[in-house]
Amino acid sequence: MSRLRKDHGLCIGSGAPGPANCITDVPGVQVGHETIVAEDDGVCTGVTAVLPHDGDLYREKLPAAAAVINGYGKMTGLAQIHELGLIESPIVLTNTLGVGTAWDAVTGWMLERFDRPEDPILSINPVVAECNDSQLNHIRARAVDEHHVRAALDGASSDPAAEGCVGAGTGMTAFGWKSGVGTASRFVRRGENRYALGVLALPNFGRADQLTIRGVPVGETLPGPCARGRSTGGSIVVLVATDLPCDARQLSRLARRVAVGIARTGGTCDGTSGEFALAFSTAKRVPHKDTGDLPRQAPNDVAEALDDAFLAVVEATEEAILSALFAATPTVGHDGRPCPALPRPSVLALVGASRAA
Amino acid sequence: MSRLRKDHGLCIGSGAPGPANCITDVPGVQVGHETIVAEDDGVCTGVTAVLPHDGDLYREKLPAAAAVINGYGKMTGLAQIHELGLIESPIVLTNTLGVGTAWDAVTGWMLERFDRPEDPILSINPVVAECNDSQLNHIRARAVDEHHVRAALDGASSDPAAEGCVGAGTGMTAFGWKSGVGTASRFVRRGENRYALGVLALPNFGRADQLTIRGVPVGETLPGPCARGRSTGGSIVVLVATDLPCDARQLSRLARRVAVGIARTGGTCDGTSGEFALAFSTAKRVPHKDTGDLPRQAPNDVAEALDDAFLAVVEATEEAILSALFAATPTVGHDGRPCPALPRPSVLALVGASRAA
Amino acid sequence: MSRLRKDHGLCIGSGAPGPANCITDVPGVQVGHETIVAEDDGVCTGVTAVLPHDGDLYREKLPAAAAVINGYGKMTGLAQIHELGLIESPIVLTNTLGVGTAWDAVTGWMLERFDRPEDPILSINPVVAECNDSQLNHIRARAVDEHHVRAALDGASSDPAAEGCVGAGTGMTAFGWKSGVGTASRFVRRGENRYALGVLALPNFGRADQLTIRGVPVGETLPGPCARGRSTGGSIVVLVATDLPCDARQLSRLARRVAVGIARTGGTCDGTSGEFALAFSTAKRVPHKDTGDLPRQAPNDVAEALDDAFLAVVEATEEAILSALFAATPTVGHDGRPCPALPRPSVLALVGASRAA
Amino acid sequence: MSRLRKDHGLCIGSGAPGPANCITDVPGVQVGHETIVAEDDGVCTGVTAVLPHDGDLYREKLPAAAAVINGYGKMTGLAQIHELGLIESPIVLTNTLGVGTAWDAVTGWMLERFDRPEDPILSINPVVAECNDSQLNHIRARAVDEHHVRAALDGASSDPAAEGCVGAGTGMTAFGWKSGVGTASRFVRRGENRYALGVLALPNFGRADQLTIRGVPVGETLPGPCARGRSTGGSIVVLVATDLPCDARQLSRLARRVAVGIARTGGTCDGTSGEFALAFSTAKRVPHKDTGDLPRQAPNDVAEALDDAFLAVVEATEEAILSALFAATPTVGHDGRPCPALPRPSVLALVGASRAA
Repeated sequence: MSRLRKDHGLCIGSGAPGPANCITDVPGVQVGHETIVAEDDGVCTGVTAVLPHDGDLYREKLPAAAAVINGYGKMTGLAQIHELGLIESPIVLTNTLGVGTAWDAVTGWMLERFDRPEDPILSINPVVAECNDSQLNHIRARAVDEHHVRAALDGASSDPAAEGCVGAGTGMTAFGWKSGVGTASRFVRRGENRYALGVLALPNFGRADQLTIRGVPVGETLPGPCARGRSTGGSIVVLVATDLPCDARQLSRLARRVAVGIARTGGTCDGTSGEFALAFSTAKRVPHKDTGDLPRQAPNDVAEALDDAFLAVVEATEEAILSALFAATPTVGHDGRPCPALPRPSVLALVGASRAA
Repeated sequence: MSRLRKDHGLCIGSGAPGPANCITDVPGVQVGHETIVAEDDGVCTGVTAVLPHDGDLYREKLPAAAAVINGYGKMTGLAQIHELGLIESPIVLTNTLGVGTAWDAVTGWMLERFDRPEDPILSINPVVAECNDSQLNHIRARAVDEHHVRAALDGASSDPAAEGCVGAGTGMTAFGWKSGVGTASRFVRRGENRYALGVLALPNFGRADQLTIRGVPVGETLPGPCARGRSTGGSIVVLVATDLPCDARQLSRLARRVAVGIARTGGTCDGTSGEFALAFSTAKRVPHKDTGDLPRQAPNDVAEALDDAFLAVVEATEEAILSALFAATPTVGHDGRPCPALPRPSVLALVGASRAA
Repeated sequence: MSRLRKDHGLCIGSGAPGPANCITDVPGVQVGHETIVAEDDGVCTGVTAVLPHDGDLYREKLPAAAAVINGYGKMTGLAQIHELGLIESPIVLTNTLGVGTAWDAVTGWMLERFDRPEDPILSINPVVAECNDSQLNHIRARAVDEHHVRAALDGASSDPAAEGCVGAGTGMTAFGWKSGVGTASRFVRRGENRYALGVLALPNFGRADQLTIRGVPVGETLPGPCARGRSTGGSIVVLVATDLPCDARQLSRLARRVAVGIARTGGTCDGTSGEFALAFSTAKRVPHKDTGDLPRQAPNDVAEALDDAFLAVVEATEEAILSALFAATPTVGHDGRPCPALPRPSVLALVGASRAA
Repeated sequence: MSRLRKDHGLCIGSGAPGPANCITDVPGVQVGHETIVAEDDGVCTGVTAVLPHDGDLYREKLPAAAAVINGYGKMTGLAQIHELGLIESPIVLTNTLGVGTAWDAVTGWMLERFDRPEDPILSINPVVAECNDSQLNHIRARAVDEHHVRAALDGASSDPAAEGCVGAGTGMTAFGWKSGVGTASRFVRRGENRYALGVLALPNFGRADQLTIRGVPVGETLPGPCARGRSTGGSIVVLVATDLPCDARQLSRLARRVAVGIARTGGTCDGTSGEFALAFSTAKRVPHKDTGDLPRQAPNDVAEALDDAFLAVVEATEEAILSALFAATPTVGHDGRPCPALPRPSVLALVGASRAA
C-alpha cells in the first residue's frame, strides 16, 4: 500500500485513493511476494505474483490488454492477450533471466490447482514480466527457482501489499536509488457508479538527474551524487487492475496511459528501458467453454468515457513509482557496493519548499 | 449480387449464401454506385458508397475494425476506428487521386443530413478507400467531383447491388482482365441463431498467370494472353458487414481473414498491391452521447467462437472477387487499348474439367 | 522559432537548441503558413505546410514513421508510411473538416510540380493532419479552400517559422488559453557527429488546471479562470524532423517519445484528444525507381543508440508546445467571446518563484 | 530437406529451390532436432532448434521481424524483436507446455557459450515458439527437460534438416494426418544478385476436409476419414531465413506473406490456430556494442522490390507444410489410437489426375 500519503504527507494528483491505496483495493486481486537474498552469493532478487481474481483463473478468464511503451523487455503472453483480449493466468514479475523458470512454475501451479480429469488443461498462457536487477543482484547465478515462484503464488492475498525491497523489487534500482515494488489506487466515477482502479509498479529505470516529484526536479538538486547512477535506461513493469466493466480495447487505452505516469516521475523512455503495462478488468469473468452467446449490449463508449479512468491510471502509476522509492531500504549489491535509499527528508524538503513558494 | 452461382453454376466454398448473395443481405446496409465515363477524355472511373445502416450514421455509430494486409494504399479514417472501435460515416470507394474529393464530399453530405443546431457536428471521420484505375482511366484528369460522390451516397439502397463495371469498379482490372465491383454473402450460425455476413470487394490486383478459381490455376492455361497483364501488384479493398453482435476486437479478427479469401483467388500480396479490409457489425448502434454506462455483460468469446464467421469471410471474399471478374464487361482504356472481360466459357470449362476429373 | 528562451529567458531541458530553435534548423525543411480570418463569418483558421526537403518530394522520398498516441483524429497517409517506411509528400496541418480539401490540394500541387510526361505520377500519399479549432472557428463554414493550401505550400521557406496564431494555429486553444503553432530544435550527438532535430507542434489540448511549465503546475494557480476551459481533450499534432540517418523503425521510436514531451506540459492523453506524431529523416533520399539495390550496411543500432535523440524529441516537443502558447495572441471566437493569451508575466513569475525557492 | 519434389515429383510453385531445398540453404543457418518418445508414458514430443548463424549469436545480432497471423499461441521474445528489429538467440520450437523450460534452457546455453567475464551477458531474449501436440502427446506429463533443449541446440548443424516426426514435429498433426517438421527453400533474384530464402514449418493445424495440394481439394475426396479429425484449429509456426540484405521492416513484410502460403494448403486461420511467422536476415550482423555509427546508405526499397522474395516465402511455406505431411510416419497417440500418415499414393493420384485433366 502506498505510504507516501499516510507516512509522508505526500499527495500525488487530485484523485481519491482507495481504502488501502493498493492494487488490492480492486476486489479479488491478490499479491504475493517471495524475497530471495543470499548475501554470500551476491543474490538479492525475488518474485512477485499478482492473481487477477480469487477463482479458477483458467476457466474464468478476464478481459485484458497490454501496452508496450518501449519493447526492450521479455514479457510473455502478449500475443494471445492481444488476440483474445483475455488473461487466464497469474502475472509473475521477476528478474530478467528468471522468466523461463517463472513461466514453467506458473504452468505447474495452474495444472495442480485447476486441472480436472474431465476438463484437462492442455494450453496455458502464463504472463511473466521482468526487470533487470543485475546492478545489485548476481543475476547470472539464476537464483530464482520453481519453489520461489510457487511461494509467491501460494502466498498471494488480498491484504494490502508490502512495498519496497520485497519480491521482484528486492534488487531493483531507479533514478540511482534503491527501488522496489510500489502500489497505489484511485476511485473512478463513471455515471452513477464508483469503481476501483489499482496499480502495482516495479520501477527499475531512470537516470539520477531525472527524478521528478510533483513536478520538482529533485534529481537535479539532491545533495551528493547517488551511489550508482545508471547511464542509461533500466525498465519498468506496471500492472493496472480495475473493476470498471471495460473490454479489451478500452483496457488497451488504459494501459497506454501508464506512459504519462512514468513521464511525470522524470522518465524519458530510454532505449534500454523496457517499459510494459498490462491492464485487466475484474468486472466480467469470461467462461472457458463456448456457450454460443455473443455480446448483446451496446457499450456506451464515447471518446471521453474513460477520461477519469485515464487520470486514475496516470496518478496511480506516478504514486506507485514514488512509493516504491520511498519504501525501499539501502541494499548492498553483489559487488559489495551499497545502493542507498532515497534521502526522504531532503526530498520532502525540496518538494515542500517548492510547493510552499 | 454475386451471379457466379445463379448465372454460371459456380459455387465457392461450402457455406450457404444469403437471399441476394450480396452485402445488402445484412439488414440496413446500402450500396450506391456512380459511374463516370467520358470516353473522349479517357475517363472511366467512379464512386461506390456503402452506408453501414439506414439511420443517423453520426449519432448511431457501429463497432468496426480494419485490417491492413499490405499498406500500400490510402484508406482514411483508420486511426480513429482503431482507437474507438467505431465507424461514424459512409464508406466511399473511388480511384487513388479522388480520395480527397470523396473525403470532402462525405463531410458535406454528413453535415447536410445529420447536423442539428442543438447538437452540431464538429468532427467527422470519413472512411475513403481507393484502388488505382490508371491502367484504364486517365487518372490525372481527376474526374471525380463532389457531385459524383453525393450521387453515389444519395443513390444508396438496400436492393441487391450491381456488380462489374459500375461505380468504383468502372476502371479496375484484375489478373489481366477487366474487373469491377463484386459482392457475396453467407449465413453464419452462432449458438441458436443465424446471422448474415456480406462482403463487397473492389479487386484491382493480381498477375495474369496467378488467377485461381476453386483451386484450378486457370491463369496458367487461359487461351491467349490477356490484353494488359500487370507486372506487379494492384490493390484491393474488401468491406465486410455482419449482423453478428461482434465488438471491435472480434471484427478485427474477421477483417484479417479477408487475406485468406484473396489468397484463394491466386493473390500473393505483392508489394505494390494495397490490400485493405474493413469490417463492421450492425447489431449494436452505439450512441453518440455519453450515457454513463459501460458494458455489463461478459462476452462469451472463446477462441473458436468465430470460426464459422471466419469461414464465411473467406468464402464470401473469394466469391466476391470472382464475381467482380465474371460481371465485368470489356472496356477500352484511355490509351485506346481494350481490356477484355474474362472469357467465361473457357474459364468454366477449365474449372469444370478439373473438377470432373 | 521558439522565442521562449530568447524573449522570455525560459529554458526547457538541458539540450542545446539549434541556431533558430526551429524545425527549419534541419537543412532542407521548409514551413509555410496561410492564415484565414474572416471575422464577420466567425472564421479563424488556416493551413500550415511542412516540406520535408526542397527537392522532388515524390521521386526522392524520405524515411518516415508515425506514432498514434491517442487515435481520435484524422491523419491521412499512415498505412502507406507504415508499410513502406517512406514519406513522399508535404505534410499539411489544418482544421478537422478541412482534411479532404487539403488532401486534394496537395494532390494537385504535387502533379503540377512533379508530374512528368515520361514518368507520370499515378499515385500520391498525401499526409494531412488536423486539430479541431471549433472552439474559436466556425468550423462548419468549411472555410479552407484549395488556394489556401496551395498558398501555404508555395510560401514554404527554410526561414525561421512564425509561431502562434498563424496558419493551422490560428484557431487553436490549449489549456484554456489561445494556442497556435510552436517550434523548437535541439542538437543531437551521435558518435563523432552532430545532427539537428526539430519539432513543429500544433497544440490544441489540455484542461486549464493541468498546464505545467518546467514542472510547475501553473494551471492550478494562475490568477483568474481562463475564458473558455475545455472540459475534455482536444488534440495535438507534432512533427519531428532530423538529419540523423535513421530508418523507419528508428523514426518510429523517435515519434513515440513525443508522448513524454506532451506529458511534461501537463497533458494526460484524454480520450477526445487526438494525439499524433510523425518523424522523418532528411539524411537519406530514397529513389522512386527501383535500382535493384538492397541495403548493404549493417546499422549499429544498439538499444541506447538513440537516447540523445529521444531526449531531444522530449525537450523540443515540450518547448514547442509552450512556445505556441507564449507566441499566441488573444483571439475572439465565432461566438463573440474572446480567448485570452497566456498571461506571460504571471506565468513567468510562478515558474521563476518556484525555481528560485 | 523437402523431398516432395525429389521423392514424389511434386513441385510447388514456379520458383527454383536451393540445393538442399532446406532452410539450411541459407548459409550459416543450422537446425537441430531432439525427439522425445516414451510410449509407456504416452510421450511423443520433442524440440527443434534453429540457430540463425554459426557465430556468437548474442554479440552479432541479426535483423528480424515477426508476424502474428492469429495470436492464439505463446511465442516469446516478440516485443523486443519488434522494438529493436534484432534477434540475439536461437529459435526453439517445442510443445505448448514446454515453453518455460525451453526459455530457461536457452538462457543457460547462451551463458555457457557466450558469456565472458569482461563482457558479461545480463539480459537475453530467447525466442521460443510452440504448437500443441496434445492430440498424440501426453502433454501434461511435461516431458521436455533442459537436456532435451540443449541436445537440440548442441546438435544443430547446417546439413539438410530431417523432416517429419522428428524434434518438435514428433507429436504434431495437420489436416487429420500425422504431421511433423517440414522445410523448403527458394532462390530469389534481386538486381544482379541471387539470394537464398529458406523456410522451416511446424504445421499442426487444419481440418481434414480442408487439405489442398496445388489447388486440388484432396481433403474433400481422400478415401476413408482420417483417424482423428480436428474439429477446430491447431497451430503453425513458420521460420523464414534469408541472406537477402533486408532490414526489420522488410522482414516484417516477408513474415506476413507466410499467411498466403498457409492459405494455399487449405488453412482458414481458425480461431484456435495460433499462427506465427518469424523472419530473419543473415546478411548483416549487428554488433552488440555501440560504435556510434548510424546507417548511411539509402535503401532502395520501392514497393515492388521484394515481390520475388514474397513469392519465395509463399511457395516455400506451402511446400514446407506439405513436405512435413509427406515425410511423417504413422504414430500412436497417448490414448492408444493411431494417427495415420497421409496416404501418399492416393494423394498423388488425386493431384496428378486433376492436373492431367
